[in-house]
Amino acid sequence: MIDQKLVAWGHSGNIIREIAEYGAEQAKIVGAENVYNFTIGSPSIDPPACVFETMDALRASVPAAELYSYAPAPGLPEVREKAAAYLTRSFGLKYRKQDVIITCGTSTALAVMIKVLLSCGGRAMSFAPYFMDYRYYVESVGSSLTVCPTVADSFQLDLKAAERMLTPDTMLLILNSPNNPSGVVLRREGLEGLARLLERKQAEYGHPIYILADEPYRDLVYDGQEVVFLPAIYKNTIYCYSFSKSMSLPGERVGFMALPPELDDYADIHAAALAVIRSFGYICVSNMWQRVGIECLGATSDISVYKANRDRLYSALTEMGYTCVYPDGAFYLFMKTPEPDAGAFCKRAMRENLLLVPGDSFGTPGYVRLAYCVSPAVIERALPTFRKLAKEYGLRG
Amino acid sequence: MIDQKLVAWGHSGNIIREIAEYGAEQAKIVGAENVYNFTIGSPSIDPPACVFETMDALRASVPAAELYSYAPAPGLPEVREKAAAYLTRSFGLKYRKQDVIITCGTSTALAVMIKVLLSCGGRAMSFAPYFMDYRYYVESVGSSLTVCPTVADSFQLDLKAAERMLTPDTMLLILNSPNNPSGVVLRREGLEGLARLLERKQAEYGHPIYILADEPYRDLVYDGQEVVFLPAIYKNTIYCYSFSKSMSLPGERVGFMALPPELDDYADIHAAALAVIRSFGYICVSNMWQRVGIECLGATSDISVYKANRDRLYSALTEMGYTCVYPDGAFYLFMKTPEPDAGAFCKRAMRENLLLVPGDSFGTPGYVRLAYCVSPAVIERALPTFRKLAKEYGLRG
Repeated sequence: MIDQKLVAWGHSGNIIREIAEYGAEQAKIVGAENVYNFTIGSPSIDPPACVFETMDALRASVPAAELYSYAPAPGLPEVREKAAAYLTRSFGLKYRKQDVIITCGTSTALAVMIKVLLSCGGRAMSFAPYFMDYRYYVESVGSSLTVCPTVADSFQLDLKAAERMLTPDTMLLILNSPNNPSGVVLRREGLEGLARLLERKQAEYGHPIYILADEPYRDLVYDGQEVVFLPAIYKNTIYCYSFSKSMSLPGERVGFMALPPELDDYADIHAAALAVIRSFGYICVSNMWQRVGIECLGATSDISVYKANRDRLYSALTEMGYTCVYPDGAFYLFMKTPEPDAGAFCKRAMRENLLLVPGDSFGTPGYVRLAYCVSPAVIERALPTFRKLAKEYGLRG
Repeated sequence: MIDQKLVAWGHSGNIIREIAEYGAEQAKIVGAENVYNFTIGSPSIDPPACVFETMDALRASVPAAELYSYAPAPGLPEVREKAAAYLTRSFGLKYRKQDVIITCGTSTALAVMIKVLLSCGGRAMSFAPYFMDYRYYVESVGSSLTVCPTVADSFQLDLKAAERMLTPDTMLLILNSPNNPSGVVLRREGLEGLARLLERKQAEYGHPIYILADEPYRDLVYDGQEVVFLPAIYKNTIYCYSFSKSMSLPGERVGFMALPPELDDYADIHAAALAVIRSFGYICVSNMWQRVGIECLGATSDISVYKANRDRLYSALTEMGYTCVYPDGAFYLFMKTPEPDAGAFCKRAMRENLLLVPGDSFGTPGYVRLAYCVSPAVIERALPTFRKLAKEYGLRG
């Protein structure tokens, strides 16, 4: 009676959540301070003060029957207007109010646009490593996700590989920079090369190829590394942003997507997006939280904590002999495992209450992801365990 | 490139929202007090005090990095536990924590379960008048919605019609009581008859037939009319509840669904629901709002305001000669239009800045819906216009 593919998906669960839940159980047994949980990308630092100030100001000034009322499905007009103005101001590309649709983080933006852009068939492509839920969004509309390899160790774009893997039925690419799980920021050179390649392929195939720019980590970069604004170099780009990471509000589900006015098939895509949003049953994003988020757009939590965590972890682990990808942004470190089977390494680490996520989940075996949005004390307490494992595997330790 | 059915849906828009937006524009021209807007079912009275008290208490006691963090996809364990206990306590049917899934109101519960239950084909049925978005949820998964007529004027179930319209590919029924748009509460006799009919048809067809009980208005009844708890009389019922209406929090998107432990194919349905939730990209319901909602479950806004509005409107309109369905609950009044074309009547009313929604949108021509969740002053100011129209159409006036 029920599609067994859905049933299998449901049972397969979410490995990140499962390891995290194991950690919570284990914490009850051995004490929270003895579990080193690097699994969940949920911000560990407080939202910026602006969030609380705006919440209080709204409660004091907006009648409750208005503040908590249904928002229009694509978002409150004033919120869309402000988001458009912010994009225009920040990136020099002109957006209008109607180009912005408020979404439950970038996840719903991606799920909706994937359903829209693959509604007449075709396939999606992403680049390894990639965030695991892309596959769900794509496969749930009956399509499939092609995963294009990237340059070994740097995870920058490999344009030759991309050219090889593009086919006439490629309808969209999902790009994620700064990247989850690697923390890598894609460099301008590769992105401009990709833009030229896609323009050539669009002409060759006779249809548009869209980019979904999944950028919830845009504001989390630590060394001034440029995060290229993709719509400025490739017009068929739908920009997806979230307040989850930079404002430490992941559980409140606010973000937006923006369609550039010159997007190919703009009117059809815009209308179909509204239809899909309605068919998913969201109704709207939290009225209160979209008002709060927009007032604070551009503000971030105190990300110096993440930078310090990154620096400490990266230097300590590389000193022990581990090989890590240097992360420019986000709050993830992608580390090569000292045995080829990352799952086995994670299980070994788990026995020491050190919780990591195998890279296999991100289409990249042989690596583990560490989410370092944790308190610095967790890192200090975990380092002896990393050292112990390093020695056991014949690294320096 | 883009499915033209989706495009057409997107362009067709939402008639309720459109009339409401027209009203907002018109208010700028003629003054808000001269627009009588009965279109939107968004509560007009403040949330119960418990909502604000809980919000403040949570902010004072739960660290921000926890209060606004990702919640597990099916909801916070303690919230699910409390919802299960509430159902068990209130209706005497035993629910467990795992039976409850927190959703963005009843809308996502319906959208998700419709996708799950129709995942191997089959059709859905609802009863006129029905809430318009049911059709979107059903058609977006490639199925179709059968609309079964009800008893003329009372809108109670017509079991003979239901029996005639059930077919071997009927997989689910959507029931909505108190009803949007009619305010009618379905009586026990009809529901028990329906339960017996469905049990017979399940045996005849050799597969389960599910009921989705869409009950966001359960706590808004005014004369002590019994709202039957459907899972207690028909085991294959998935109960869908929302905090939107009774707690005046529609824009914050919190509700839940509950699967009874003895539901046929429970394990498959539960797993598939989690998969669909993930594929829609919600991630989770607002962490803060699910905590607030659950603490206030059972509390309602001061609904005596709605009761007074209902009494005033119903008696005034029937005195003028209009025919109205007596509404037991919700905050809608369904009125027969004095000409057969409800759309034409709405346009005539609109010229007087009286905004109503034609019943055609709810599968019931010849009626208009009035959402009376407005301030009593709006009703008083609107009555002379209703009277003017009544006279014009040859009623008493």
